[in-house]
Amino acid sequence: MARWQTGARDRLEQAALALFLEQGFSETTVPQIAERAGLTTRTFFRHFADKREVLFAGDDAVPALFHQLLTRTPAQVLPVPLILSQLGPFAESVFGAHRDILNVRTQIIRTDQGLTERKFQKMAAIKASVTQGFVERGSDPLSAMLAADLAMTVMETALTRWLAPDNTATLSAVVAEVLASLRQLVSVPELTPAP
Amino acid sequence: MARWQTGARDRLEQAALALFLEQGFSETTVPQIAERAGLTTRTFFRHFADKREVLFAGDDAVPALFHQLLTRTPAQVLPVPLILSQLGPFAESVFGAHRDILNVRTQIIRTDQGLTERKFQKMAAIKASVTQGFVERGSDPLSAMLAADLAMTVMETALTRWLAPDNTATLSAVVAEVLASLRQLVSVPELTPAP
Repeated sequence: MARWQTGARDRLEQAALALFLEQGFSETTVPQIAERAGLTTRTFFRHFADKREVLFAGDDAVPALFHQLLTRTPAQVLPVPLILSQLGPFAESVFGAHRDILNVRTQIIRTDQGLTERKFQKMAAIKASVTQGFVERGSDPLSAMLAADLAMTVMETALTRWLAPDNTATLSAVVAEVLASLRQLVSVPELTPAP
Repeated sequence: MARWQTGARDRLEQAALALFLEQGFSETTVPQIAERAGLTTRTFFRHFADKREVLFAGDDAVPALFHQLLTRTPAQVLPVPLILSQLGPFAESVFGAHRDILNVRTQIIRTDQGLTERKFQKMAAIKASVTQGFVERGSDPLSAMLAADLAMTVMETALTRWLAPDNTATLSAVVAEVLASLRQLVSVPELTPAP
């Protein structure tokens, strides 16, 4: 009976993802999800605004987490060194334990145009928060936006590679690989001003 | 009668954009566009697959143009210096003469979720082509993808700033500003290996 001891929210999430995979996102209803979880639709709506939100659970916390990372890193650390040094541990702490669920979510989001659009919106919100964080650290708005874009690219590229079916490396290792590539890309001697 | 001497395609584009602005994209039909242009729907469909394509006219050529830029630049130029040196003239030659039409297009695309999604798809196609171009220049796939992302970010940021209502600078000047910011962002002495 162990599975009944997990929280209602987790059970609803698992039931929803299973049904989305089995019969498709658009064919799945909230009553079906509640029934599969052994709960009522009323309980469902206490945890999620709609069935779509099950696929983005936790995402709304990411902008604030990223923003925290930027405010707690010493102000003298420049944007690119900050990305190179902090993004690995950050990714691991936020996403590292959720590979299976992220994998299923990504699969389902890909099947539906409305979900894909919603994902873009969530990512735009994260990018806006990261940009704001760099501004608060003293970057001008344009540099802040470019730095945020760089951070988002590294994160997105790392997550995509980590979730690839043939990948066996940890998220930390994948982020390290992407960051090494970024470091090499931007380490162009001719660009560096004389000390 | 001078306006009747312009090409049918241009007349259809102008009629479509005017109608999209006046009455909304979804409310506008192909027969209305043709009528406004003084042409037949048959002529419309010789030039555009559907009314949506009017908003992306010319975009399908961009991946190939970008790819050409990458193949004609000497192979020893590294990705970031290539972006810094080539993106300004490229942007000017591709977009510089079309500010008014790009402005109207951007406004209309923003009003419709399907159009926004389509724009993302077009940009993904461009990014794939740029990535492929960097691979053909000898970059590994990961570096190529990061470099392509950087190029796309610069281009998109510059176009957005150039099209902003309060902007009076030329596209070349705006790209130069964005590139100066990128150059400064990645010019971090601690990242550069000793020569």
